[in-house]
Amino acid sequence: MAVYTEVTDEEVSAFVAEYDIGAVVACKGIAEGVENSNYLLVTTGGRFILTLYEKRVAEGDLPFFVALMEHLASNGIRCPLPISARDGQTLRRLAGRPAAIVTFLDGMWPRRIQPVHCHELGHGLAAMHLAGRDFSMVRANDLSVAGWRPLFEACGDGADSVSPGLGAALAAELDVLEAAWPRDLPAGVIHADLFPDNVFFRDSELSGLIDFYFACTDLLAYDIAVCLNAWCFETDGAFNITKARALLSAYTAARPVSAAELAVLPMLARGAAIRFLLTRLYDWLNVPDGALVRPKDPLEYWKKLRFHQQVSTVAAYGLDP
Amino acid sequence: MAVYTEVTDEEVSAFVAEYDIGAVVACKGIAEGVENSNYLLVTTGGRFILTLYEKRVAEGDLPFFVALMEHLASNGIRCPLPISARDGQTLRRLAGRPAAIVTFLDGMWPRRIQPVHCHELGHGLAAMHLAGRDFSMVRANDLSVAGWRPLFEACGDGADSVSPGLGAALAAELDVLEAAWPRDLPAGVIHADLFPDNVFFRDSELSGLIDFYFACTDLLAYDIAVCLNAWCFETDGAFNITKARALLSAYTAARPVSAAELAVLPMLARGAAIRFLLTRLYDWLNVPDGALVRPKDPLEYWKKLRFHQQVSTVAAYGLDP
Repeated sequence: MAVYTEVTDEEVSAFVAEYDIGAVVACKGIAEGVENSNYLLVTTGGRFILTLYEKRVAEGDLPFFVALMEHLASNGIRCPLPISARDGQTLRRLAGRPAAIVTFLDGMWPRRIQPVHCHELGHGLAAMHLAGRDFSMVRANDLSVAGWRPLFEACGDGADSVSPGLGAALAAELDVLEAAWPRDLPAGVIHADLFPDNVFFRDSELSGLIDFYFACTDLLAYDIAVCLNAWCFETDGAFNITKARALLSAYTAARPVSAAELAVLPMLARGAAIRFLLTRLYDWLNVPDGALVRPKDPLEYWKKLRFHQQVSTVAAYGLDP
Repeated sequence: MAVYTEVTDEEVSAFVAEYDIGAVVACKGIAEGVENSNYLLVTTGGRFILTLYEKRVAEGDLPFFVALMEHLASNGIRCPLPISARDGQTLRRLAGRPAAIVTFLDGMWPRRIQPVHCHELGHGLAAMHLAGRDFSMVRANDLSVAGWRPLFEACGDGADSVSPGLGAALAAELDVLEAAWPRDLPAGVIHADLFPDNVFFRDSELSGLIDFYFACTDLLAYDIAVCLNAWCFETDGAFNITKARALLSAYTAARPVSAAELAVLPMLARGAAIRFLLTRLYDWLNVPDGALVRPKDPLEYWKKLRFHQQVSTVAAYGLDP
């Protein structure tokens, strides 16, 4: 749930008056997203999303995110398109925060994942990677392998307070990941946070990708690994190989994946698991006073990590190795 | 902030298929309202609000609320109109909760109240009272004078934990209110919760009233008293007589108010203050584990109550007594 920055009706009207999108009809805070404040904005010109960027998103990164959405949208990817104000700017300020208006994407995110969703996701993820090939801007992934140990150390003894022995297990896993992390694989712009609530569908057909505020330049296969973790486990913790096969086969049909990429996918999946485990652990241990957001369980990702530790080839993910 | 009941995309699509309003295009939780779960529902037929009624709203009262909105809307009041499904029903079930689809009202609620808003409010409130005159259903106000002492007693020693001495002061005030509460005044259907976030405006013109889930049968002037408290105090606690005059003069121009009603308005305003003070106090002392809603400060209404204790005639509210 979100909406951290309240904007007044006068502020919204004055802000929208800088654009050629008509007059404000309604503006309602949306109870989704945890990083930014999002409003559904209805004008006499149509529906839009008004986003106020909160402090967790570095202001210096915003031009990358906005340019990426413009690039992807103009290359056939259904994603929010930032709208330019009459002065040509897409990134502006509202209520003391950086702000942008983007197009509204139809569709709903799937609450109960079916294999058909994973198939659509695999295709859409590959299409996004292909569309991003000629995107010229670069943003390092500060939540990749080099960032994990500092994050772990910032948690101090917190891991053991969540689950006794977890601290030593994470330290050992970081040793493995730092030694084995691959480098010479196809890289490019990745979404890096493509959870189900960031993927919209209409009638089982993918209708849009949203929330590019973790997007960065990194190994393309790492994005697949994030999706394996986010889409292919059941709520009881069981890995669903049918969903993984649907995801991977659709992805590889759209973007041929090298044998080297496939070989390290289990290691990338362990890395993707520890990345979300560590940020969730940090948030779990650092809930601000009066927080309106319930922290997510870090141990969900520890179970996923342990699954991938047992995987030796992508056969476990439903693909011929 | 709300959205307590999560609905799946499949549930929403199946639910909407029972209506003649087109197919679902999008459905997003709205971060407003504290009693129910509200979704902005976009279909191929237009924009709607989908409401799931949570446990704080008694299911037996829902037919009253729905019939009231239908009655008011068909009598020229801009309020949400419940949509009938093909079976003729407006109250249905979704995700285990009672649910309804109502029309979407344009406009935004005012974050910074100006006298012009109070003028529009006074006119709109009177129009609602007039339109409700021939509404035949009755619902007792269980948050009126008879309900306050039980609520106070349910708070136990809690009042003093919030502010030392508050318990005795509230007990004394209840003695006064129970003795002096008027009975033989014009009564009818009232909104009973017409705070600024329940009143929409477009360009300083009232465009709609929402959230009728405290509506009941009670003294019409009590509704004015609720609005005096909710609209005519500044955030620093000061009473703004200009706003009160705008509210009362517009109301009395649309519905002539008797001398008896005006004479007891200060007492009604004390009652309206203690009603919100007590529910806020109760919520303050009973925040459920893991609550995502921050309780509102009960002492804000204690300050308002003390203001009205000093008032002897409506001259203090800007009207000739």
